[in-house]
Amino acid sequence: MKTLTVALGERSYPIFIGQHLIHQPELFSPYLSGTQALVVTNTTVAPLYLEQLQQTLSAAKANLNVQVVILPDGEQYKTLTVLNEIFDVAIENHFDRQCTFIALGGGVIGDMTGYAAASYQRGVNFIQVPTTLLSQVDSSVGGKTGVNHPKGKNMIGAFHQPEAVIIDTETLNTLPDRELSAGLAEVIKYGLIVDKPFFEWLEQNLPGLLERNPLILAEAIERSCQDKATIVAQDEKEAGLRALFNLGHTFGHAIEAGMGYGIWLHGEGVSAGTMQAVDLSRRLGDLTVEDQQRIAAIFTAANLPVLPPTDLSVEQFLAFMAGDKKVQAGKIRLVLLKAIGQAYVTGDYPAEMLEATLREYR
Amino acid sequence: MKTLTVALGERSYPIFIGQHLIHQPELFSPYLSGTQALVVTNTTVAPLYLEQLQQTLSAAKANLNVQVVILPDGEQYKTLTVLNEIFDVAIENHFDRQCTFIALGGGVIGDMTGYAAASYQRGVNFIQVPTTLLSQVDSSVGGKTGVNHPKGKNMIGAFHQPEAVIIDTETLNTLPDRELSAGLAEVIKYGLIVDKPFFEWLEQNLPGLLERNPLILAEAIERSCQDKATIVAQDEKEAGLRALFNLGHTFGHAIEAGMGYGIWLHGEGVSAGTMQAVDLSRRLGDLTVEDQQRIAAIFTAANLPVLPPTDLSVEQFLAFMAGDKKVQAGKIRLVLLKAIGQAYVTGDYPAEMLEATLREYR
Repeated sequence: MKTLTVALGERSYPIFIGQHLIHQPELFSPYLSGTQALVVTNTTVAPLYLEQLQQTLSAAKANLNVQVVILPDGEQYKTLTVLNEIFDVAIENHFDRQCTFIALGGGVIGDMTGYAAASYQRGVNFIQVPTTLLSQVDSSVGGKTGVNHPKGKNMIGAFHQPEAVIIDTETLNTLPDRELSAGLAEVIKYGLIVDKPFFEWLEQNLPGLLERNPLILAEAIERSCQDKATIVAQDEKEAGLRALFNLGHTFGHAIEAGMGYGIWLHGEGVSAGTMQAVDLSRRLGDLTVEDQQRIAAIFTAANLPVLPPTDLSVEQFLAFMAGDKKVQAGKIRLVLLKAIGQAYVTGDYPAEMLEATLREYR
Repeated sequence: MKTLTVALGERSYPIFIGQHLIHQPELFSPYLSGTQALVVTNTTVAPLYLEQLQQTLSAAKANLNVQVVILPDGEQYKTLTVLNEIFDVAIENHFDRQCTFIALGGGVIGDMTGYAAASYQRGVNFIQVPTTLLSQVDSSVGGKTGVNHPKGKNMIGAFHQPEAVIIDTETLNTLPDRELSAGLAEVIKYGLIVDKPFFEWLEQNLPGLLERNPLILAEAIERSCQDKATIVAQDEKEAGLRALFNLGHTFGHAIEAGMGYGIWLHGEGVSAGTMQAVDLSRRLGDLTVEDQQRIAAIFTAANLPVLPPTDLSVEQFLAFMAGDKKVQAGKIRLVLLKAIGQAYVTGDYPAEMLEATLREYR
């Protein structure tokens, strides 16, 4: 088992990565405050891992009152209305301020459970048990939680750090291929923004990742979490540096929202969106055509889309991008690349170059 | 104008108290980050003060984009569904992370605007302009924000501190008598829990307060905010000391929820609820019958109820109280009095004594 710490002062917490972890009560015990635990999961994950987790929790703390909420599966259910189902169960069972919420599932479950934990009685503890590659490398670090609004993704939420993140790599064995690939989009992103050696390691190890070799997966998850944790520790509330994680996300969110949540997976939007950011970076003279081809090659090898959907017009793209959280004073700020492994944030690029990318790169 | 500071490290903020303050752009200017401001108010307050506040904001910052949300008035609208109307307007107008939310109204508007500000894009700035005595002395200090759940009050929310609180005592001139009295319940509470000299000052000055003498009102507001700020500075997240503010609230919330939100005003519930806490304190041997009569006398003089509604049975009371946030491990923790000016929190009292109070004090 690998352990790393997200260093955030009194909000620091550990991430455990390894096989068979949801079978180990002693991993959970130190983080179960109070006498009540609420497991939030979805209809896909519940049949696979819920019973095991319930057994482990019961063994972890005597007389723990464990309740369960099973939500429908999918980004389209990441709403205030569905969030309320979590509050209903907590309140109906008289859960107090010392209770612990536990997220068992992917990014949607993690984001919603975290936001519910941030908001229930103005804040209770939570533990993340992410079961998809995407959530293991992305939402398990950084404390971002929230729900979508019909007009914008993650528009409503909170920064709320977990007590611990427990990543059982065995849960990836049941992950559909498409979702494994979507998770790899975020893994590749860390290499692109701050870690060229990791990018090169990924070029070498992509076959092992796609074959789900547990040691190679654990290595990629650890390196991703470490890269993310290093930046989050410097910028917990996303005042600056942390914005780099949004490489491909302003384009990608436009794709996701424009197509309707749930049609494109988040990682697929990030992959195609990153290629748009790469195209704009090339137009700005920072990346070469060879860089662009090399980046497209790794996404393609990971079975990810490198072109945005043709259904979205340039105008639609711009409208969705203008609603993004990274807008400041009407200017669409983007994460672009100076080189592979070196991202930066800017609102200072010719508008016609962005339009050229949107018009021509498809 | 009086100014006091709520000392919370980097989250410290000023409270300004005086007449004519919503006419003074220079008071607002330093706290308007960004280029967008969203004023949240209700159908009662909007016709009285909205136009003036809009003028002041426009004068405070050039080219400020000021948008308005007018919500229905009443505790029964303090819900996640109504909260969403605030998000709708912010998102439709492409409000970014640098925007400022401004609460113009009473406690419901302050709590909802604060929670919306805490949650919108995971946190934006907000300014409180409380227009009721209750909100001026209670919700303007402490950063508690949130909405109700059908089964419990303030069950969903966040701790989110404002940038500034601007209390214009002129707004009290339009406050209905019943709401002025409800505000006085919280003012009297500060005397009861930590400030016996203030309690005695209130016994002397109640006539002036009821006549809305602006200097006496400003004095009472400042002293209340100061008493509250001193405790909040020691316990921002309500880990201990801060619980004292809940004198009368566990009983009071049961009354409010049991009767249906909006039937009893919050301050009325606190008044009757405090008398129940006082009755239990007397049964425990800490207060005398004379103390009990003296406290009843000041609430009565303030035109507040000193008896709970007869519609609620002991069983209903206990059920609502068991759903309260102050429950720990199934035990109903209460704020009780050792003496006038000296409150404490306990779960350690004979259950039959609580039942005797609920059964006999009505």
